Amino acid sequence: MKKAVVLLSGGLDSTTCMAIAKDEGYEIYPISFEYGQRHNRELECAKKVAKKFNVRAHKIIRLESLGGSALTDMNIDVPKYKGDNEIPITYVPARNILFLSYALGYAEVLGAEAIFIGVSAVDYSGYPDCRPEFIGAFQKVVDEGTAAGVKGKSIEIKSPLIHLTKGETIELGIGLRAPYELTTSCYNGEEKACGECDSCVLRLKGFEEAGIKDSIEYKKIL
Amino acid sequence: MKKAVVLLSGGLDSTTCMAIAKDEGYEIYPISFEYGQRHNRELECAKKVAKKFNVRAHKIIRLESLGGSALTDMNIDVPKYKGDNEIPITYVPARNILFLSYALGYAEVLGAEAIFIGVSAVDYSGYPDCRPEFIGAFQKVVDEGTAAGVKGKSIEIKSPLIHLTKGETIELGIGLRAPYELTTSCYNGEEKACGECDSCVLRLKGFEEAGIKDSIEYKKIL
Repeated sequence: MKKAVVLLSGGLDSTTCMAIAKDEGYEIYPISFEYGQRHNRELECAKKVAKKFNVRAHKIIRLESLGGSALTDMNIDVPKYKGDNEIPITYVPARNILFLSYALGYAEVLGAEAIFIGVSAVDYSGYPDCRPEFIGAFQKVVDEGTAAGVKGKSIEIKSPLIHLTKGETIELGIGLRAPYELTTSCYNGEEKACGECDSCVLRLKGFEEAGIKDSIEYKKIL
Repeated sequence: MKKAVVLLSGGLDSTTCMAIAKDEGYEIYPISFEYGQRHNRELECAKKVAKKFNVRAHKIIRLESLGGSALTDMNIDVPKYKGDNEIPITYVPARNILFLSYALGYAEVLGAEAIFIGVSAVDYSGYPDCRPEFIGAFQKVVDEGTAAGVKGKSIEIKSPLIHLTKGETIELGIGLRAPYELTTSCYNGEEKACGECDSCVLRLKGFEEAGIKDSIEYKKIL
Protein backbone atom coordinates (compact mmCIF):
# COMPACT_ATOMS: atom_id res chain seq x y z
CA MET A 1 0.00 0.00 0.00
CA LYS A 2 1.37 3.42 -0.88
CA LYS A 3 2.19 5.60 2.10
CA ALA A 4 1.79 9.30 2.79
CA VAL A 5 2.96 11.48 5.65
CA VAL A 6 0.32 14.03 6.63
CA LEU A 7 1.18 17.18 8.59
CA LEU A 8 -1.51 17.12 11.28
CA SER A 9 -1.97 20.16 13.51
CA GLY A 10 -5.38 19.23 14.85
CA GLY A 11 -7.03 22.01 12.88
CA LEU A 12 -9.57 21.98 10.12
CA ASP A 13 -7.22 22.09 7.12
CA SER A 14 -4.87 19.32 8.19
CA THR A 15 -7.83 17.14 9.17
CA THR A 16 -9.23 17.68 5.69
CA CYS A 17 -5.86 16.53 4.30
CA MET A 18 -6.10 13.33 6.35
CA ALA A 19 -9.47 12.62 4.74
CA ILE A 20 -8.18 13.42 1.24
CA ALA A 21 -5.07 11.24 1.63
CA LYS A 22 -7.19 8.35 2.85
CA ASP A 23 -9.64 8.83 0.01
CA GLU A 24 -6.75 8.74 -2.47
CA GLY A 25 -5.78 5.31 -1.17
CA TYR A 26 -2.74 6.15 0.94
CA GLU A 27 -1.85 4.51 4.21
CA ILE A 28 -1.58 7.65 6.30
CA TYR A 29 1.21 8.52 8.73
CA PRO A 30 0.37 11.74 10.56
CA ILE A 31 3.13 13.83 12.07
CA SER A 32 2.51 16.57 14.64
CA PHE A 33 4.73 19.04 16.41
CA GLU A 34 5.09 20.52 19.83
CA TYR A 35 6.95 23.73 19.16
CA GLY A 36 6.29 25.90 22.13
CA GLN A 37 2.74 26.70 21.12
CA ARG A 38 0.78 28.79 23.57
CA HIS A 39 -1.36 25.80 24.37
CA ASN A 40 -1.52 22.05 23.95
CA ARG A 41 -5.08 21.99 22.79
CA GLU A 42 -4.06 21.64 19.15
CA LEU A 43 -1.98 18.60 19.96
CA GLU A 44 -4.82 16.99 21.91
CA CYS A 45 -7.07 17.50 18.92
CA ALA A 46 -4.42 16.05 16.60
CA LYS A 47 -4.28 12.91 18.74
CA LYS A 48 -8.06 12.51 18.64
CA VAL A 49 -8.13 12.98 14.88
CA ALA A 50 -5.30 10.46 14.37
CA LYS A 51 -7.14 7.96 16.52
CA LYS A 52 -10.36 8.48 14.60
CA PHE A 53 -8.50 7.59 11.39
CA ASN A 54 -7.13 4.44 13.03
CA VAL A 55 -3.57 5.16 11.97
CA ARG A 56 -0.73 2.71 12.48
CA ALA A 57 1.50 5.38 14.03
CA HIS A 58 1.20 9.02 15.02
CA LYS A 59 4.61 10.69 15.14
CA ILE A 60 4.87 13.59 17.55
CA ILE A 61 8.04 15.65 17.39
CA ARG A 62 9.12 18.11 20.03
CA LEU A 63 10.79 21.10 18.41
CA GLU A 64 12.73 23.64 20.39
CA SER A 65 11.15 27.01 19.95
CA LEU A 66 13.19 29.79 18.46
CA GLY A 67 10.74 32.46 19.68
CA GLY A 68 9.86 35.48 17.59
CA SER A 69 6.12 34.93 17.14
CA ALA A 70 2.92 35.58 19.03
CA LEU A 71 2.17 31.87 18.69
CA THR A 72 5.32 30.80 20.52
CA ASP A 73 6.22 33.74 22.72
CA MET A 74 3.90 34.36 25.68
CA ASN A 75 5.14 37.95 25.87
CA ILE A 76 3.50 38.83 22.57
CA ASP A 77 -0.31 39.04 22.54
CA VAL A 78 -2.34 37.34 19.87
CA PRO A 79 -3.98 40.23 18.01
CA LYS A 80 -7.63 40.43 17.03
CA TYR A 81 -8.52 39.92 13.38
CA LYS A 82 -7.61 42.93 11.21
CA GLY A 83 -8.07 41.50 7.71
CA ASP A 84 -5.15 43.32 6.09
CA ASN A 85 -2.41 41.83 3.95
CA GLU A 86 0.55 42.40 6.25
CA ILE A 87 2.55 39.42 7.48
CA PRO A 88 0.94 38.89 10.89
CA ILE A 89 2.79 38.71 14.21
CA THR A 90 1.45 35.15 14.46
CA TYR A 91 3.90 34.23 11.65
CA VAL A 92 6.40 31.73 13.08
CA PRO A 93 9.81 32.07 11.39
CA ALA A 94 10.47 29.17 9.02
CA ARG A 95 7.73 27.07 10.62
CA ASN A 96 6.35 25.28 7.59
CA ILE A 97 9.88 24.81 6.25
CA LEU A 98 10.84 23.08 9.46
CA PHE A 99 7.65 21.00 9.54
CA LEU A 100 8.11 19.91 5.94
CA SER A 101 11.77 19.08 6.56
CA TYR A 102 10.84 16.77 9.39
CA ALA A 103 8.01 15.23 7.41
CA LEU A 104 10.49 14.68 4.60
CA GLY A 105 13.01 12.87 6.77
CA TYR A 106 10.18 10.73 8.12
CA ALA A 107 8.84 10.06 4.61
CA GLU A 108 12.28 8.92 3.45
CA VAL A 109 12.65 6.58 6.40
CA LEU A 110 9.15 5.14 5.80
CA GLY A 111 9.55 4.94 2.04
CA ALA A 112 6.46 7.16 1.63
CA GLU A 113 5.54 8.60 -1.75
CA ALA A 114 3.85 11.80 -0.68
CA ILE A 115 3.56 14.44 2.02
CA PHE A 116 0.27 16.28 2.53
CA ILE A 117 0.22 19.82 3.88
CA GLY A 118 -3.00 21.75 4.35
CA VAL A 119 -1.87 25.24 3.42
CA SER A 120 -4.13 27.62 1.55
CA ALA A 121 -3.02 30.71 -0.31
CA VAL A 122 -6.56 32.05 -0.48
CA ASP A 123 -7.54 32.89 3.05
CA TYR A 124 -4.04 33.11 4.55
CA SER A 125 -2.23 35.26 2.03
CA GLY A 126 -0.34 36.94 4.85
CA TYR A 127 1.90 33.92 5.42
CA PRO A 128 4.68 33.55 2.82
CA ASP A 129 5.01 29.83 3.51
CA CYS A 130 1.42 29.07 2.50
CA ARG A 131 1.79 30.11 -1.15
CA PRO A 132 2.21 27.88 -4.25
CA GLU A 133 5.57 29.56 -4.97
CA PHE A 134 6.83 28.26 -1.66
CA ILE A 135 5.48 24.75 -2.15
CA GLY A 136 7.03 24.64 -5.63
CA ALA A 137 10.38 25.77 -4.24
CA PHE A 138 10.25 23.14 -1.51
CA GLN A 139 9.42 20.42 -4.04
CA LYS A 140 12.64 21.34 -5.82
CA VAL A 141 14.57 20.95 -2.54
CA VAL A 142 13.10 17.46 -2.21
CA ASP A 143 14.01 16.57 -5.79
CA GLU A 144 17.58 17.85 -5.42
CA GLY A 145 18.35 17.28 -1.78
CA THR A 146 17.19 13.77 -0.94
CA ALA A 147 18.34 10.29 -1.86
CA ALA A 148 14.80 9.54 -3.08
CA GLY A 149 14.83 12.66 -5.25
CA VAL A 150 18.16 12.13 -6.99
CA LYS A 151 17.28 8.47 -7.62
CA GLY A 152 14.26 9.73 -9.59
CA LYS A 153 11.69 8.50 -7.07
CA SER A 154 11.02 11.82 -5.41
CA ILE A 155 8.50 12.39 -2.69
CA GLU A 156 5.59 14.55 -3.80
CA ILE A 157 4.58 17.55 -1.70
CA LYS A 158 0.80 17.68 -2.01
CA SER A 159 -1.12 20.78 -0.98
CA PRO A 160 -4.64 19.98 -2.14
CA LEU A 161 -6.23 22.99 -0.41
CA ILE A 162 -3.87 25.62 -1.73
CA HIS A 163 -6.32 27.19 -4.16
CA LEU A 164 -9.46 26.60 -2.11
CA THR A 165 -11.31 29.08 0.07
CA LYS A 166 -12.09 27.95 3.59
CA GLY A 167 -15.67 27.36 2.52
CA GLU A 168 -14.60 25.12 -0.36
CA THR A 169 -12.26 23.20 1.95
CA ILE A 170 -15.11 22.60 4.37
CA GLU A 171 -17.45 21.39 1.63
CA LEU A 172 -14.76 19.00 0.42
CA GLY A 173 -14.03 17.76 3.93
CA ILE A 174 -17.69 17.26 4.85
CA GLY A 175 -18.07 15.19 1.67
CA LEU A 176 -15.21 12.96 2.86
CA ARG A 177 -16.56 12.83 6.41
CA ALA A 178 -13.62 14.67 7.96
CA PRO A 179 -14.21 14.70 11.75
CA TYR A 180 -14.36 18.49 12.19
CA GLU A 181 -16.04 18.08 15.56
CA LEU A 182 -12.66 16.95 16.91
CA THR A 183 -10.66 19.90 15.58
CA THR A 184 -9.69 23.29 16.93
CA SER A 185 -8.65 26.43 15.10
CA CYS A 186 -8.47 29.05 17.86
CA TYR A 187 -5.08 30.62 18.55
CA ASN A 188 -5.96 31.11 22.21
CA GLY A 189 -6.63 27.49 23.03
CA GLU A 190 -9.14 27.81 25.82
CA GLU A 191 -11.88 25.25 26.22
CA LYS A 192 -14.22 27.17 23.96
CA ALA A 193 -12.85 28.84 20.83
CA CYS A 194 -12.62 32.64 21.26
CA GLY A 195 -14.39 33.51 18.01
CA GLU A 196 -12.28 36.66 17.68
CA CYS A 197 -8.76 35.75 16.54
CA ASP A 198 -7.82 35.60 12.82
CA SER A 199 -8.13 31.87 12.82
CA CYS A 200 -11.58 31.67 14.44
CA VAL A 201 -12.93 34.42 12.19
CA LEU A 202 -11.73 32.64 9.05
CA ARG A 203 -13.14 29.32 10.21
CA LEU A 204 -16.54 30.81 10.98
CA LYS A 205 -16.62 32.62 7.63
CA GLY A 206 -15.77 29.32 5.94
CA PHE A 207 -18.67 27.47 7.54
CA GLU A 208 -20.98 30.32 6.66
CA GLU A 209 -19.76 30.23 3.04
CA ALA A 210 -20.31 26.47 2.92
CA GLY A 211 -23.76 26.85 4.44
CA ILE A 212 -22.93 24.37 7.18
CA LYS A 213 -23.08 24.79 10.96
CA ASP A 214 -19.75 24.51 12.78
CA SER A 215 -20.06 21.80 15.44
CA ILE A 216 -17.50 23.18 17.90
CA GLU A 217 -18.34 25.68 20.66
CA TYR A 218 -17.47 29.38 20.67
CA LYS A 219 -17.35 31.91 23.48
CA LYS A 220 -18.51 34.65 21.18
CA ILE A 221 -19.50 34.90 17.55
CA LEU A 222 -18.85 38.32 15.96
CA MET B 1 27.35 44.76 12.73
CA LYS B 2 25.97 42.30 10.17
CA LYS B 3 25.14 38.87 11.56
CA ALA B 4 25.53 35.37 10.18
CA VAL B 5 24.36 32.02 11.47
CA VAL B 6 27.00 29.32 10.94
CA LEU B 7 26.15 25.61 10.96
CA LEU B 8 28.83 24.23 13.26
CA SER B 9 29.31 20.49 13.55
CA GLY B 10 32.72 20.58 15.17
CA GLY B 11 34.36 19.25 12.02
CA LEU B 12 36.88 20.74 9.70
CA ASP B 13 34.54 22.23 7.10
CA SER B 14 32.20 24.01 9.47
CA THR B 15 35.17 25.35 11.44
CA THR B 16 36.55 26.74 8.20
CA CYS B 17 33.19 28.44 7.64
CA MET B 18 33.43 30.07 11.06
CA ALA B 19 36.80 31.53 10.05
CA ILE B 20 35.51 32.69 6.67
CA ALA B 21 32.40 34.34 8.16
CA LYS B 22 34.51 36.14 10.73
CA ASP B 23 36.96 37.22 8.04
CA GLU B 24 34.05 38.62 5.99
CA GLY B 25 33.10 40.85 8.91
CA TYR B 26 30.06 39.02 10.26
CA GLU B 27 29.18 38.69 13.90
CA ILE B 28 28.92 34.91 14.02
CA TYR B 29 26.14 32.89 15.64
CA PRO B 30 26.98 29.19 15.49
CA ILE B 31 24.21 26.62 15.68
CA SER B 32 24.85 22.93 16.42
CA PHE B 33 22.61 19.91 16.63
CA GLU B 34 22.26 16.85 18.77
CA TYR B 35 20.41 14.47 16.50
CA GLY B 36 21.08 11.06 17.89
CA GLN B 37 24.63 10.89 16.58
CA ARG B 38 26.57 7.79 17.54
CA HIS B 39 28.74 9.93 19.79
CA ASN B 40 28.89 13.35 21.40
CA ARG B 41 32.47 14.04 20.45
CA GLU B 42 31.43 16.27 17.56
CA LEU B 43 29.35 18.42 19.86
CA GLU B 44 32.20 18.75 22.36
CA CYS B 45 34.43 19.92 19.53
CA ALA B 46 31.78 22.35 18.34
CA LYS B 47 31.65 23.88 21.81
CA LYS B 48 35.43 24.29 21.92
CA VAL B 49 35.48 25.87 18.48
CA ALA B 50 32.65 28.27 19.38
CA LYS B 51 34.52 29.26 22.54
CA LYS B 52 37.73 29.83 20.61
CA PHE B 53 35.85 32.27 18.37
CA ASN B 54 34.50 34.08 21.41
CA VAL B 55 30.94 34.03 20.13
CA ARG B 56 28.11 35.83 21.88
CA ALA B 57 25.88 32.75 21.81
CA HIS B 58 26.16 29.14 20.72
CA LYS B 59 22.75 27.67 19.95
CA ILE B 60 22.49 23.93 20.49
CA ILE B 61 19.32 22.27 19.27
CA ARG B 62 18.22 18.79 20.23
CA LEU B 63 16.55 17.10 17.29
CA GLU B 64 14.60 13.92 17.62
CA SER B 65 16.18 11.28 15.48
CA LEU B 66 14.13 9.69 12.75
CA GLY B 67 16.59 6.79 12.34
CA GLY B 68 17.45 5.33 8.97
CA SER B 69 21.20 6.05 8.87
CA ALA B 70 24.41 4.48 10.10
CA LEU B 71 25.17 7.80 11.78
CA THR B 72 22.04 7.74 13.90
CA ASP B 73 21.13 4.09 14.22
CA MET B 74 23.41 1.99 16.40
CA ASN B 75 22.16 -1.17 14.65
CA ILE B 76 23.79 -0.13 11.38
CA ASP B 77 27.59 -0.31 11.23
CA VAL B 78 29.66 2.55 9.87
CA PRO B 79 31.27 1.08 6.77
CA LYS B 80 34.92 1.42 5.80
CA TYR B 81 35.79 3.79 2.96
CA LYS B 82 34.87 2.39 -0.46
CA GLY B 83 35.33 5.45 -2.67
CA ASP B 84 32.40 4.75 -5.00
CA ASN B 85 29.65 7.12 -6.01
CA GLU B 86 26.68 5.45 -4.37
CA ILE B 87 24.73 7.33 -1.70
CA PRO B 88 26.33 5.97 1.47
CA ILE B 89 24.47 4.38 4.38
CA THR B 90 25.84 7.27 6.47
CA TYR B 91 23.39 9.55 4.59
CA VAL B 92 20.90 10.91 7.13
CA PRO B 93 17.49 11.51 5.52
CA ALA B 94 16.85 15.23 5.04
CA ARG B 95 19.60 16.16 7.51
CA ASN B 96 20.95 19.26 5.85
CA ILE B 97 17.43 20.36 4.96
CA LEU B 98 16.49 20.14 8.61
CA PHE B 99 19.68 21.87 9.77
CA LEU B 100 19.21 24.69 7.28
CA SER B 101 15.56 25.08 8.27
CA TYR B 102 16.49 25.54 11.90
CA ALA B 103 19.32 27.89 11.00
CA LEU B 104 16.84 29.83 8.91
CA GLY B 105 14.33 30.24 11.73
CA TYR B 106 17.17 31.35 13.99
CA ALA B 107 18.49 33.77 11.37
CA GLU B 108 15.04 35.34 11.00
CA VAL B 109 14.69 35.78 14.74
CA LEU B 110 18.20 37.32 14.97
CA GLY B 111 17.80 39.47 11.87
CA ALA B 112 20.86 37.81 10.35
CA GLU B 113 21.78 38.37 6.71
CA ALA B 114 23.46 35.08 5.93
CA ILE B 115 23.74 31.41 6.82
CA PHE B 116 27.04 29.59 6.27
CA ILE B 117 27.07 25.87 5.55
CA GLY B 118 30.31 23.99 4.93
CA VAL B 119 29.17 21.51 2.30
CA SER B 120 31.41 20.48 -0.55
CA ALA B 121 30.30 18.82 -3.75
CA VAL B 122 33.83 17.78 -4.62
CA ASP B 123 34.84 15.20 -2.08
CA TYR B 124 31.36 14.21 -0.92
CA SER B 125 29.54 13.75 -4.16
CA GLY B 126 27.65 10.81 -2.65
CA TYR B 127 25.41 13.07 -0.57
CA PRO B 128 22.64 14.76 -2.56
CA ASP B 129 22.31 17.57 -0.02
CA CYS B 130 25.89 18.76 -0.50
CA ARG B 131 25.49 19.80 -4.14
CA PRO B 132 25.08 23.32 -5.60
CA GLU B 133 21.72 22.27 -7.08
CA PHE B 134 20.47 21.63 -3.58
CA ILE B 135 21.83 24.87 -2.14
CA GLY B 136 20.26 26.80 -5.05
CA ALA B 137 16.91 25.11 -4.44
CA PHE B 138 17.04 25.88 -0.74
CA GLN B 139 17.86 29.53 -1.46
CA LYS B 140 14.64 29.69 -3.44
CA VAL B 141 12.73 28.29 -0.45
CA VAL B 142 14.19 31.08 1.68
CA ASP B 143 13.27 33.72 -0.90
CA GLU B 144 9.70 32.44 -1.26
CA GLY B 145 8.96 31.00 2.15
CA THR B 146 10.11 33.55 4.71
CA ALA B 147 8.97 37.00 5.75
CA ALA B 148 12.51 38.29 5.11
CA GLY B 149 12.47 36.79 1.61
CA VAL B 150 9.12 38.14 0.46
CA LYS B 151 10.02 41.58 1.83
CA GLY B 152 13.03 41.55 -0.54
CA LYS B 153 15.61 41.26 2.24
CA SER B 154 16.26 37.57 1.91
CA ILE B 155 18.81 35.64 3.93
CA GLU B 156 21.70 34.39 1.82
CA ILE B 157 22.72 30.73 2.03
CA LYS B 158 26.50 30.79 1.68
CA SER B 159 28.43 27.61 0.91
CA PRO B 160 31.96 28.91 0.34
CA LEU B 161 33.54 25.44 0.22
CA ILE B 162 31.16 23.91 -2.28
CA HIS B 163 33.62 23.87 -5.18
CA LEU B 164 36.75 23.27 -3.12
CA THR B 165 38.60 20.00 -2.60
CA LYS B 166 39.36 19.09 0.98
CA GLY B 167 42.96 20.17 0.37
CA GLU B 168 41.89 23.61 -0.87
CA THR B 169 39.56 24.00 2.10
CA ILE B 170 42.41 23.23 4.47
CA GLU B 171 44.75 25.70 2.76
CA LEU B 172 42.06 28.38 3.01
CA GLY B 173 41.35 27.58 6.65
CA ILE B 174 45.00 27.52 7.67
CA GLY B 175 45.39 30.95 6.07
CA LEU B 176 42.53 32.21 8.26
CA ARG B 177 43.89 30.44 11.35
CA ALA B 178 40.94 28.09 11.71
CA PRO B 179 41.53 26.06 14.90
CA TYR B 180 41.68 22.62 13.28
CA GLU B 181 43.37 21.17 16.34
CA LEU B 182 39.98 21.42 18.11
CA THR B 183 38.00 19.62 15.42
CA THR B 184 37.05 16.02 14.78
CA SER B 185 35.98 14.32 11.59
CA CYS B 186 35.81 10.64 12.53
CA TYR B 187 32.41 8.94 12.29
CA ASN B 188 33.29 6.56 15.13
CA GLY B 189 33.97 9.20 17.76
CA GLU B 190 36.51 7.45 19.95
CA GLU B 191 39.23 9.44 21.62
CA LYS B 192 41.57 9.01 18.68
CA ALA B 193 40.18 9.23 15.16
CA CYS B 194 39.93 5.79 13.52
CA GLY B 195 41.70 6.78 10.30
CA GLU B 196 39.60 4.27 8.37
CA CYS B 197 36.09 5.65 7.89
CA ASP B 198 35.13 7.73 4.82
CA SER B 199 35.44 10.91 6.77
CA CYS B 200 38.90 10.22 8.25
CA VAL B 201 40.24 9.07 4.89
CA LEU B 202 39.03 12.24 3.17
CA ARG B 203 40.45 14.45 5.89
CA LEU B 204 43.85 12.78 5.74
CA LYS B 205 43.91 12.99 1.94
CA GLY B 206 43.07 16.68 2.24
CA PHE B 207 45.95 17.43 4.58
CA GLU B 208 48.27 15.46 2.32
CA GLU B 209 47.03 17.43 -0.70
CA ALA B 210 47.58 20.70 1.17
CA GLY B 211 51.06 19.58 2.23
CA ILE B 212 50.23 20.24 5.89
CA LYS B 213 50.38 17.89 8.85
CA ASP B 214 47.06 17.17 10.59
CA SER B 215 47.41 18.07 14.26
CA ILE B 216 44.83 15.59 15.63
CA GLU B 217 45.67 12.03 16.65
CA TYR B 218 44.79 8.87 14.72
CA LYS B 219 44.69 5.21 15.77
CA LYS B 220 45.82 4.08 12.38
CA ILE B 221 46.79 5.81 9.15
CA LEU B 222 46.15 3.74 6.03
